[in-house]
Amino acid sequence: MSIAEQPLVEASVPAYERLSVERKAAIVRELSALLGERYVLHSSYDVALYEYDASIDRCPPDVVVLPASSQEIAQIVKIAARYRVPVVPRGAGTGLSGGAIPVYGGIVIVFTRMNRILEVDYENLRAVVEPGLVNLHLSIALNPQGFYYVPDPSSQRSCTIGGNVGENAGGPHTLIYGVTTNHVLGLEIVTADGEIMEVGGWTPDNPGYDLTGLLIGSEGTLCIVTKIIVRIVHMPEAVKTMIAVFDTMDDASNTVSEIIASGVVPAAIEMMDQMILQAVEADSHAGYPMDAAAVLLMETEGMSESVAEQLEQIVSICNKHHARVVRIARDEAERQLLWAGRKNAFGAVGRISPEFYVQDGVVPRTKLPYVLRRVSEICEHYGLRVGNVFHAGDGNLHPLILFDSQVPGEVERVRQAGHEILQVCAEVGGTITGEHGVGLEKQEEMALIFNNVDLQVMQQVRTTWNPDQLLNPGKLFPRPGRCADIKQI
Amino acid sequence: MSIAEQPLVEASVPAYERLSVERKAAIVRELSALLGERYVLHSSYDVALYEYDASIDRCPPDVVVLPASSQEIAQIVKIAARYRVPVVPRGAGTGLSGGAIPVYGGIVIVFTRMNRILEVDYENLRAVVEPGLVNLHLSIALNPQGFYYVPDPSSQRSCTIGGNVGENAGGPHTLIYGVTTNHVLGLEIVTADGEIMEVGGWTPDNPGYDLTGLLIGSEGTLCIVTKIIVRIVHMPEAVKTMIAVFDTMDDASNTVSEIIASGVVPAAIEMMDQMILQAVEADSHAGYPMDAAAVLLMETEGMSESVAEQLEQIVSICNKHHARVVRIARDEAERQLLWAGRKNAFGAVGRISPEFYVQDGVVPRTKLPYVLRRVSEICEHYGLRVGNVFHAGDGNLHPLILFDSQVPGEVERVRQAGHEILQVCAEVGGTITGEHGVGLEKQEEMALIFNNVDLQVMQQVRTTWNPDQLLNPGKLFPRPGRCADIKQI
Repeated sequence: MSIAEQPLVEASVPAYERLSVERKAAIVRELSALLGERYVLHSSYDVALYEYDASIDRCPPDVVVLPASSQEIAQIVKIAARYRVPVVPRGAGTGLSGGAIPVYGGIVIVFTRMNRILEVDYENLRAVVEPGLVNLHLSIALNPQGFYYVPDPSSQRSCTIGGNVGENAGGPHTLIYGVTTNHVLGLEIVTADGEIMEVGGWTPDNPGYDLTGLLIGSEGTLCIVTKIIVRIVHMPEAVKTMIAVFDTMDDASNTVSEIIASGVVPAAIEMMDQMILQAVEADSHAGYPMDAAAVLLMETEGMSESVAEQLEQIVSICNKHHARVVRIARDEAERQLLWAGRKNAFGAVGRISPEFYVQDGVVPRTKLPYVLRRVSEICEHYGLRVGNVFHAGDGNLHPLILFDSQVPGEVERVRQAGHEILQVCAEVGGTITGEHGVGLEKQEEMALIFNNVDLQVMQQVRTTWNPDQLLNPGKLFPRPGRCADIKQI
Repeated sequence: MSIAEQPLVEASVPAYERLSVERKAAIVRELSALLGERYVLHSSYDVALYEYDASIDRCPPDVVVLPASSQEIAQIVKIAARYRVPVVPRGAGTGLSGGAIPVYGGIVIVFTRMNRILEVDYENLRAVVEPGLVNLHLSIALNPQGFYYVPDPSSQRSCTIGGNVGENAGGPHTLIYGVTTNHVLGLEIVTADGEIMEVGGWTPDNPGYDLTGLLIGSEGTLCIVTKIIVRIVHMPEAVKTMIAVFDTMDDASNTVSEIIASGVVPAAIEMMDQMILQAVEADSHAGYPMDAAAVLLMETEGMSESVAEQLEQIVSICNKHHARVVRIARDEAERQLLWAGRKNAFGAVGRISPEFYVQDGVVPRTKLPYVLRRVSEICEHYGLRVGNVFHAGDGNLHPLILFDSQVPGEVERVRQAGHEILQVCAEVGGTITGEHGVGLEKQEEMALIFNNVDLQVMQQVRTTWNPDQLLNPGKLFPRPGRCADIKQI
């Protein structure tokens, strides 16, 4: 039978049954003998914290374990395989697509105790870290020597590098430096049958298949990552940060396109619309204008002279597109304040809505004005308020749809609006997620950008690595019913 | 059985038999009906051109086809599957590891007729090309608009972008911009069962598994690439090229380490030793000193001011490490001449030896002085002359070992010296190939950097994509006897 004719993947997902009390007790006993009782949580009270992430869904695990080593993780995976229960790795739970939610229960592996920097080689620009290391903590450790780790998701104060690897996380500086996969050279992993294995290594572009690249962004469905070799880089000599204020979204969008087309590549170009500006300013008092239609937060970095020249070109393009004002941060404190406003934007929106849903789609930069108008129209159609804060330079949209789950039918309308926004992204040649992953949230939307053959081939890759589908089951691919409820905040 | 206990891969390579006259005639008939007789070569005279590449081995195909479309390639793969004969894709045959040699015979697909630029989107910085497009031809087409395609292997005047994808080719500018995988966003491929499929796409970092990354560098063993979406970039505002002349290799090596450690990242740092300098200068008259121990060819590019500042820093570091002279190219003509010397270095060595063998290994930059000394010692031990011309900034060595296959035993000594050089690379934490691929040449050396589990997992990946092992069989993995002879020049 040709691959194109094979039935789609739903049928191949096994139906997990919730663990019986006896089986769960037996698993807890084995895990406690391995890790010590202290590092095995199993009461419904203790595991409640691990039933959700920063997405809209939730589902409780049966058991939560906090191992301290790769060897312990290998043993956990072997125990899970013996009992045929799912294993789901979890970083800080900041994921926006439900990747860490144990949708069929089972064992959640939490990396809190595996948060060490194991080695730093400044001369060869490498570091080896454990997956539970908080993203920002690596740069904080490197800064005194003049180095840092590039990928900077907005959640970098809490998210872990292991989670970043699982989701192939981006961040504002993706524009110039690329996402997590561009900064990871090798991994130590535990395979589905509990073997410890290394892929990639200390040097880039190893021979053989690029398994490191394959595993990064595989959302826990192919293996458990236990160690990460990352690239580190020198801090730039100079950094300049500025905001440009616009009276229309179109002017701001066209500015972005022209900056990129001119050949200037700033380190970051972030856009915030009026709703977000009002929320951010009320929260952080960074000096963002609350009456503007849109603000671009831009950064250029490198050698001093080059930064000065880029700055001049950017300002000139902003003015050409009717920027009301372009303000350059006078010092590091003001720069940090502007970034704090942007990076805490999601939190700030909590001031104006009990709940919100963050969408994540990518479109060609030149389609930004059209797509932003369609986002407004779709949300208006469903009677929903929406704000936009996003990586404009990459065409990576983040519409925040506000809602209140107490209002009957509102959650369904939010989901439908989100789905239609992704349809628009796919229609204009974009994609359904830029950096938040597919997880639980976008399984159905995979069909917007992949056909049956594509999904079959991916499914075969999963089956090769994860034949019994015990590693983070129920993610990435279309599938039948699931346990997840809507989270109530 | 645990994956670690499974037997190694040799046993799983099927034993191909040479085609009988009748079966070959039947295949030629079907292929001729599909493509036209003109595009199916099968006499031993016609296929002789396709029995070798730029490596040391050779083996004739049974049939050579020159298709014009993805659809034709899909049909060719289906015919090959029906007759169970191997299919080997071939670009320009400039590969250095034997990747395009049909070691078990079968059908070689040559992409000469699929060499078109299908689409260029300057605003979104993308182009779509066919695999047979010569690397340099893309940049030549883009230059008038101020754009270019970054990866620039030394063979870029003849090698194809399809071949670059197969081998994940690098080049001098890898240092700052990365290798082919960093410049390809999506592929159209034909799978082993003759389906046409797309992976990746117009936007970077698509969701799902990174199949684009997996397929790039898979050396024709997973699929046939039929279309390539590449990233294009603006030409830099300013470029400065210089050579620094040293009286010892250690001074040159230490200069490289200190430049990188200082945070200056030139676009390229190439090193040539005395033997290479003499060959290059006799050939190209670029003004390289023939009495120096080593020369660094360096380039810095970007905005004018930044280039000037980098230049100053580089010159100062060179002087600190006793550079005899640092010469900056005065104009584009002199710059092109310096690069022509470097890029034609392999050819120039043909002046001083009937044959040579190019090794390709990678080591941490800080290990360069030690490894270069070991390379000399190893070659001296075997009575072989060796020259070094390589991407020093990346720690990517290319020792050229000179030999004459008419001298009994010399080929074996060359292979043994090459093997020992790679052992040294692996011992210091490096790897066995930087950009030339594994192909036929380094199958046994894969065991220097991968263990049984690693190779098993890669083998499983191959089996998933290429279950009958008809796509470029006998490459990448250790295997039993092969047909390949040593090429006589």
